[in-house]
Amino acid sequence: MNLIDLRSDTVTKPSPAMLEAMFKAPVGDDVYSEDPTVLELQAYGASLFGMEAGLFCPSGTMTNQIAIKLHTQPLTEVICERTSHVYLYEVGGIAFNSAASVHLIEGVRGKITAEQVAAAINPDNIHYPVTRLVSLENTANKGGGSFYTLPEIAAISEVCKQHGLALHLDGARVFNALTASGDAPETYSRYFDTISVCLSKGLGAPVGSLLLGPKPLIEQAKRVRKALGGGWRQAGYLAAAGLYALQHNIDRLQEDHDRAAQLGAALQAAPYVTEVMPVETNIIIFTLAPEVNNDRYLEFLKENGILASSFGPKQIRMVTHLDLTQEMVARLIQVVTSFKA
Amino acid sequence: MNLIDLRSDTVTKPSPAMLEAMFKAPVGDDVYSEDPTVLELQAYGASLFGMEAGLFCPSGTMTNQIAIKLHTQPLTEVICERTSHVYLYEVGGIAFNSAASVHLIEGVRGKITAEQVAAAINPDNIHYPVTRLVSLENTANKGGGSFYTLPEIAAISEVCKQHGLALHLDGARVFNALTASGDAPETYSRYFDTISVCLSKGLGAPVGSLLLGPKPLIEQAKRVRKALGGGWRQAGYLAAAGLYALQHNIDRLQEDHDRAAQLGAALQAAPYVTEVMPVETNIIIFTLAPEVNNDRYLEFLKENGILASSFGPKQIRMVTHLDLTQEMVARLIQVVTSFKA
Amino acid sequence: MNLIDLRSDTVTKPSPAMLEAMFKAPVGDDVYSEDPTVLELQAYGASLFGMEAGLFCPSGTMTNQIAIKLHTQPLTEVICERTSHVYLYEVGGIAFNSAASVHLIEGVRGKITAEQVAAAINPDNIHYPVTRLVSLENTANKGGGSFYTLPEIAAISEVCKQHGLALHLDGARVFNALTASGDAPETYSRYFDTISVCLSKGLGAPVGSLLLGPKPLIEQAKRVRKALGGGWRQAGYLAAAGLYALQHNIDRLQEDHDRAAQLGAALQAAPYVTEVMPVETNIIIFTLAPEVNNDRYLEFLKENGILASSFGPKQIRMVTHLDLTQEMVARLIQVVTSFKA
Amino acid sequence: MNLIDLRSDTVTKPSPAMLEAMFKAPVGDDVYSEDPTVLELQAYGASLFGMEAGLFCPSGTMTNQIAIKLHTQPLTEVICERTSHVYLYEVGGIAFNSAASVHLIEGVRGKITAEQVAAAINPDNIHYPVTRLVSLENTANKGGGSFYTLPEIAAISEVCKQHGLALHLDGARVFNALTASGDAPETYSRYFDTISVCLSKGLGAPVGSLLLGPKPLIEQAKRVRKALGGGWRQAGYLAAAGLYALQHNIDRLQEDHDRAAQLGAALQAAPYVTEVMPVETNIIIFTLAPEVNNDRYLEFLKENGILASSFGPKQIRMVTHLDLTQEMVARLIQVVTSFKA
Repeated sequence: MNLIDLRSDTVTKPSPAMLEAMFKAPVGDDVYSEDPTVLELQAYGASLFGMEAGLFCPSGTMTNQIAIKLHTQPLTEVICERTSHVYLYEVGGIAFNSAASVHLIEGVRGKITAEQVAAAINPDNIHYPVTRLVSLENTANKGGGSFYTLPEIAAISEVCKQHGLALHLDGARVFNALTASGDAPETYSRYFDTISVCLSKGLGAPVGSLLLGPKPLIEQAKRVRKALGGGWRQAGYLAAAGLYALQHNIDRLQEDHDRAAQLGAALQAAPYVTEVMPVETNIIIFTLAPEVNNDRYLEFLKENGILASSFGPKQIRMVTHLDLTQEMVARLIQVVTSFKA
Repeated sequence: MNLIDLRSDTVTKPSPAMLEAMFKAPVGDDVYSEDPTVLELQAYGASLFGMEAGLFCPSGTMTNQIAIKLHTQPLTEVICERTSHVYLYEVGGIAFNSAASVHLIEGVRGKITAEQVAAAINPDNIHYPVTRLVSLENTANKGGGSFYTLPEIAAISEVCKQHGLALHLDGARVFNALTASGDAPETYSRYFDTISVCLSKGLGAPVGSLLLGPKPLIEQAKRVRKALGGGWRQAGYLAAAGLYALQHNIDRLQEDHDRAAQLGAALQAAPYVTEVMPVETNIIIFTLAPEVNNDRYLEFLKENGILASSFGPKQIRMVTHLDLTQEMVARLIQVVTSFKA
Repeated sequence: MNLIDLRSDTVTKPSPAMLEAMFKAPVGDDVYSEDPTVLELQAYGASLFGMEAGLFCPSGTMTNQIAIKLHTQPLTEVICERTSHVYLYEVGGIAFNSAASVHLIEGVRGKITAEQVAAAINPDNIHYPVTRLVSLENTANKGGGSFYTLPEIAAISEVCKQHGLALHLDGARVFNALTASGDAPETYSRYFDTISVCLSKGLGAPVGSLLLGPKPLIEQAKRVRKALGGGWRQAGYLAAAGLYALQHNIDRLQEDHDRAAQLGAALQAAPYVTEVMPVETNIIIFTLAPEVNNDRYLEFLKENGILASSFGPKQIRMVTHLDLTQEMVARLIQVVTSFKA
Repeated sequence: MNLIDLRSDTVTKPSPAMLEAMFKAPVGDDVYSEDPTVLELQAYGASLFGMEAGLFCPSGTMTNQIAIKLHTQPLTEVICERTSHVYLYEVGGIAFNSAASVHLIEGVRGKITAEQVAAAINPDNIHYPVTRLVSLENTANKGGGSFYTLPEIAAISEVCKQHGLALHLDGARVFNALTASGDAPETYSRYFDTISVCLSKGLGAPVGSLLLGPKPLIEQAKRVRKALGGGWRQAGYLAAAGLYALQHNIDRLQEDHDRAAQLGAALQAAPYVTEVMPVETNIIIFTLAPEVNNDRYLEFLKENGILASSFGPKQIRMVTHLDLTQEMVARLIQVVTSFKA
């Protein structure tokens, strides 16, 4: 019985075709900007989003943290949702790497509005840090994979422009958002100053994230990456996987969403589940009944060859991805349906 | 007509007796720990709270920021209320001076509970900064001068001890809290690792704040103060004022509270006021009716020789202090009662 | 027998006239920029140096550290002499407060040249921090009170302008430098972007330092000062002393220099002294013969009512200042002459 | 004609055998510590040096910067040689990532002595940061590949232990040092608290560096790595290359040293070379005659298919590595011999 690992879409492993692309890749020293495959990936990713330039980094945390460093300085402030990854899961990196303060907004399912952003901007007063950056996460992980519509993004971007704020997108699952919204990636270049695009989640590459933005900023990003220790050498093997992922694995994300929806429906129907967050993309977050506890439920799943994550008191998260098969999904639904509280 | 300045209790000026104490004070070089008046103030303040040692600094922001630096390190986290001074009004200093992250709790009138603290402690997981410090503010400025009872403090202290967290008190108005609760200052030494005591608010000294704590920590505090630029020389003139304040101006705080209560009652009765936060100490925060705006109301007060602060949308703050006379309070009440929406 | 304290010119205490000025000063809340005496001091100091604006702070370390913060950002670099105060005696504040790197130049008696500055500028390469600031110290403490001539300063300023670098002056003893060079303070405004002027050293004020610079930068400096905890309230008492010092105590610095020269000559003639650094202003640094150790020598002085500082292996520093009398100088010379190795 | 790239030993590309090892490697999610190949590499590297644990990171800059962060705190100081990589080539990362100050020692060919370390330790005085860490580089890049003997290391370690300082080794080229000294890697565990071992220089792996140290420290290192953005996912492909490198490419380093010696001798004999630093390992640094400039010389080499680095005024660096063949070395010597000043 194969393990069904739903803890995250980061757990995926390269397919044979991706592996073949990796090991045929020409490489060079990326600190000298001489790795041809890295250069190709950066150019390809940038053009996809209509941005000028890109920088390939070891993780989405690094691309986010570099972007925050570029847009802020000490004594400035970042506006983001209370549960956003840049605040919650990056080890307090906004303070650590940028010495910047955070203004946390209570959003709805991880999403914030233009009105909230406008209200969160500090007045000009020496008691406050200067507001400089808004960071959005799309899809929003803690929001159960909720996504922003283009008008929502446009309205926030408008507030940013009016107040001279930069707007960053943590696009850890941006292609899930684009798949769900039907928007084209290049539309984003109108609104965001920088975009972080993760290649190792739903897209299935083993390692890496792209930071996209204007050329002068990406030049500066190389220095920040070096200081963080992200200046790697023959990274082309990993870049090749990322390139393959961008060229082959976007179209199939709808399948992950469909399977997440099926799974969500099955959980909704299960008597031991009190609530399932609306399933909009590839994330399912649900709440267990009072009489069930997380450990016991996760143990039950594990005995049945399934891994999921505890995501808060009584909350469980499952994430669908390209390493699942139709057979696995069928088994999944059968198992979760069979649980007795 | 004398100006009635209710913007803050920081605006007070030394009385003739305090001034006389200042200019008779023996002084020395405090960087060498040789200013006798500074040493006396530090010893006096520490003994008052049953703490081992004290350090005299130019502001309450500095004593708070030094305490936070001493208790944290980069990649750790501070728990505090969402509207607390250390987070909101110190220019993002937790990130700037300590590179530490914040975990903000939504309190009730600026106060948090032991249960909330316990729930806010990060689990042991490399995605999170390590929780290290809880900071309370007593009284709570944004809570309208609300205060903690000793059992509330004891319960929070217990959670801190169980989890190895330090507990700091931002005592910008700690004597107002002690006056209202009836607790003795030395009881606090059982619960708090460090206490910041402001001398230039309700106590009426012109400049300065004391950081109190265990001797080894205060030794380290001197190095942090030096790095922040707080190593001043013949500070004894200011210390003398602080000493005078601690010795003469605590007992009279009840008068400020009584006057605040009178003022609060008058505002409660005023038709243009929709809500007055419970007045527990020397701060009055009230909400204007929809048809009145802050600027117009403050302008009206100013024309009548009264200064107050805008404290949020439709919110006004007034603070009573030792520079008010009974005549001024009477005039105040008459003026605020006469306003027509 | 009165103690003769030559450890530093920071140990001076206000004269009766200065104290009277302090005592009479009108004050206000300086965080609100409402202290009239502080405002007057800031305006007076700025105009003296031909600068636009000033900010009164608790120490020279604070004015230096604020200036460094204003001119740099993380991932940039400061050029300064290897023994300069900003690097050596401010607790590593360049790294702590500004997260900036240092490029240390080996100077001659604490002074660096335009050629050395030019050679120390980093090339444009992501391995290096970006050079942003040059900081000079005048007089140079570790250089034995050596001073820069105007052409030396002009040449360094020229290099800075060519390379887009800011130039800061740590003027802890700038009036000693100006007294020795005969230059007028306003000539400095052509060369320096910011100047830190200490009021509590040779000028005799009890506490404080002025940061001078262009108006927009000084506006920003207020926010940095607040974050460091330097936002004090009724600081006018101290400002009055600083104002008095600037208005009365500059002309008499020549006397300190003359006395330092006499003392230097006496030490030069003493058989237990192997070397005296050229005495150019009010600092005397000399080297003890191999058979004498610092502790024994300082003990001898102490027994004779004289305090001096150990300043390195076999090195002793003495500083003259306005609390010395002619009688004390005579006694000093007699005592140092009488020492037997 | 194949390009002969002597700019650095970082430019090497995996051999077919190494690539095959990469291609076959089992992988997993390294953020969850589940990548079996990464775990194997970490254990293998640690055991080689007699250390408890290891952490695989994207670069030597990252392993160095993590170590420095672990051993220091803000307001502490790092002792290192003036030209060491951690200070000079890591973008001022000591200040940026750790907010720590540096105490730079002028060494001999990049190496410092126990006496120098002892003299560089700050006394206990609040003006100074607290000395916490000594960082050595072995071999020393700017010293022309010079290496420390075991007694030299032992003496420095002894000073560190006496003063409670940590000792870190930047082992970017530690196997070159061990090859030259004849010491066994496990002897180092007695002296160093942490060791950074680069896999992508002379060992020929495409990407990565190992941080080795005691288990509790390496646990903390994972959190720092996460904050810097170094938490990568299926890094096993790169780890496989590192493992292959450690198991196959150490013995052949003597060949690089022999070739460097040959090249050094040829340059020594060349009339346009005024000085060649002693060639002890795989680095050759030489000085051009006054009439030759770097650009012209490097251009000449390039026209002959050779790349080298400018390493300072009139200085050129060449580095031998495993991508050179005997034929290339012969051609190299012929080309450098043929240059006419």
